[in-house]
Amino acid sequence: MKKFSAGLKKGTTRKKVCTIGGGTGTFTVLSGLKKYPVDLSAVVTVADSGGSTGRLRDEFGYLPVGDFRMALAALANENGDGNILRDLFLYRFEKGEGLTGHNFGNLLLVAMTDLFGSEVAAIERASKVLRVEGRVVPVSDHNVQLVAEYANGKKVVGETSIDEPPEGHDGAMRIAKLSLKPRARIHESARQAIEEADILILGPGDLYTSTIANLVVGGVREAIAHSRAQLVFVMNLMTKYGQTAGFGAREHVDEIARYAGKIPDYVIVNNEPLPENVSKRYEKERDFPVKDDLMDFTSAVVRAPLLSSEIIATKKGDTVRRSLIRHDSDKLAREIMGLL
Amino acid sequence: MKKFSAGLKKGTTRKKVCTIGGGTGTFTVLSGLKKYPVDLSAVVTVADSGGSTGRLRDEFGYLPVGDFRMALAALANENGDGNILRDLFLYRFEKGEGLTGHNFGNLLLVAMTDLFGSEVAAIERASKVLRVEGRVVPVSDHNVQLVAEYANGKKVVGETSIDEPPEGHDGAMRIAKLSLKPRARIHESARQAIEEADILILGPGDLYTSTIANLVVGGVREAIAHSRAQLVFVMNLMTKYGQTAGFGAREHVDEIARYAGKIPDYVIVNNEPLPENVSKRYEKERDFPVKDDLMDFTSAVVRAPLLSSEIIATKKGDTVRRSLIRHDSDKLAREIMGLL
Repeated sequence: MKKFSAGLKKGTTRKKVCTIGGGTGTFTVLSGLKKYPVDLSAVVTVADSGGSTGRLRDEFGYLPVGDFRMALAALANENGDGNILRDLFLYRFEKGEGLTGHNFGNLLLVAMTDLFGSEVAAIERASKVLRVEGRVVPVSDHNVQLVAEYANGKKVVGETSIDEPPEGHDGAMRIAKLSLKPRARIHESARQAIEEADILILGPGDLYTSTIANLVVGGVREAIAHSRAQLVFVMNLMTKYGQTAGFGAREHVDEIARYAGKIPDYVIVNNEPLPENVSKRYEKERDFPVKDDLMDFTSAVVRAPLLSSEIIATKKGDTVRRSLIRHDSDKLAREIMGLL
Repeated sequence: MKKFSAGLKKGTTRKKVCTIGGGTGTFTVLSGLKKYPVDLSAVVTVADSGGSTGRLRDEFGYLPVGDFRMALAALANENGDGNILRDLFLYRFEKGEGLTGHNFGNLLLVAMTDLFGSEVAAIERASKVLRVEGRVVPVSDHNVQLVAEYANGKKVVGETSIDEPPEGHDGAMRIAKLSLKPRARIHESARQAIEEADILILGPGDLYTSTIANLVVGGVREAIAHSRAQLVFVMNLMTKYGQTAGFGAREHVDEIARYAGKIPDYVIVNNEPLPENVSKRYEKERDFPVKDDLMDFTSAVVRAPLLSSEIIATKKGDTVRRSLIRHDSDKLAREIMGLL
């Protein structure tokens, strides 16, 4: 942080950094980036259909709130009131009929959507009370489901079903085409954030259900094409059975390029080996570290040790499979800022 | 408010006003009083066992949060963030399996109790984020149930069951004795608020389940006895079948005196007749305006038109019977301030 501040000339307008994603990947990137004096926007997927978010989505008919929650919590001011509300926002009920598994932040966003008339209004008010540093915008305000068409022609509808393939589905099968049902258009504020950015960050996160889920929204490719931003892709640490089984780094990048309509200018790759006990636990889920096969890749590849020292415990009430190991938000942010 | 401010000498320490109660009655009193430059404390009942509060109480084992919610919302700053959070705090879910009927504020207090370790800590943090002007304290931190012993010796346990007498129970029968099970001791902060007050306000509110429910906590009578405060009782507008059927004003005051161990110094009584359509609706519930039979009463009786012009609509998801007409908070506060 010091290094960067020293390099920033007085009176220089803040650089515009825009993330495109969802879930814990975006949470990690934003948590690190918010410590720098940049103008942050988080464009967030609206395709989630599982867990607490999925239940609320079904019952209230609003856009899925879980990815908004994560981005808002990441950007919440951690001093004073912001901190109390941030802890609360991330709290999950582990008791109570009908409450168990619900994230408090999700309930807050649903209540605010009802009270203030729209998801965008809810995000604005929540940003205010959480003292959010930056802006969180839905990639679209259309209520859509993800559709994955696999190599064998089979289609699966819904983010959760793609994320956690149903019984009998071969989790190693490739997703030939990801799309939305019905079609969705980019939200104006998302278009603006992407077009005006100096740097665009894709990933980390589930390749199809968190990252590409944004790129298949109508107008996102075009906004990326119109933007003069450097396109940065943060490589996932692990493959994910059901989405990216057997993928090397290159295949990840190729899929991003295919859906974004542009080859990333930079790819940030972790080069630190996983602790053995963690690897073992992943192996049981048929997930493996992503192999770095980007030696001949034409864009710039940034390699650095990026692992968080913290191992994520699975919590009671978890209905969603979570990653055990994550990027370290500070180390990752430092590499991103180095590209600006 | 102007009148009062004009009468307040510069440098004078603020008068200490302490309410003892719960529910919408306390909400009304506090909403009016907070507009004056006084030091406000709300001592709040912990006997509620119905509705959203009752469900949460059963499922989480915490103190009932509904009365805290009402008092906190009443005292929340209505400007800026406070206002957003106040609206949210009072929001009630009308959809969602297991969510319908829950007040958002209740969920917030339950989540905070879990996060911060105690109900008192939760109230403190909630007060902070709501920018509460004043202090909300539980009358006790013991987890208790109300017990009503009726004239025929029959006992009913639990606030809701007393409030809404079960089938076959004669709602006109007198409550011979109200007590708690198990016994409870006054919370230190409640004792302090009562003992240091310049004026203590009891009522309006359900005579037994909201007001006297506080007086039966061990140490409350003693705190009132030790306090040099004037004791003010705000007379209810209506009798309530199941609690005060057939009660005149005098019988209300006698019951208060019996449980408080002190005859109120002042009784504030509404002298404005109810709109006929409202009376009619109350009659169906066997509830009637409280007759003012305090002509020979030795304490001071303050009579004023105190009705709110707003008629309360019953909302979807209501599991609790609510009053249709209430005191006007500004008019009531003006009369209370006139006694200081």
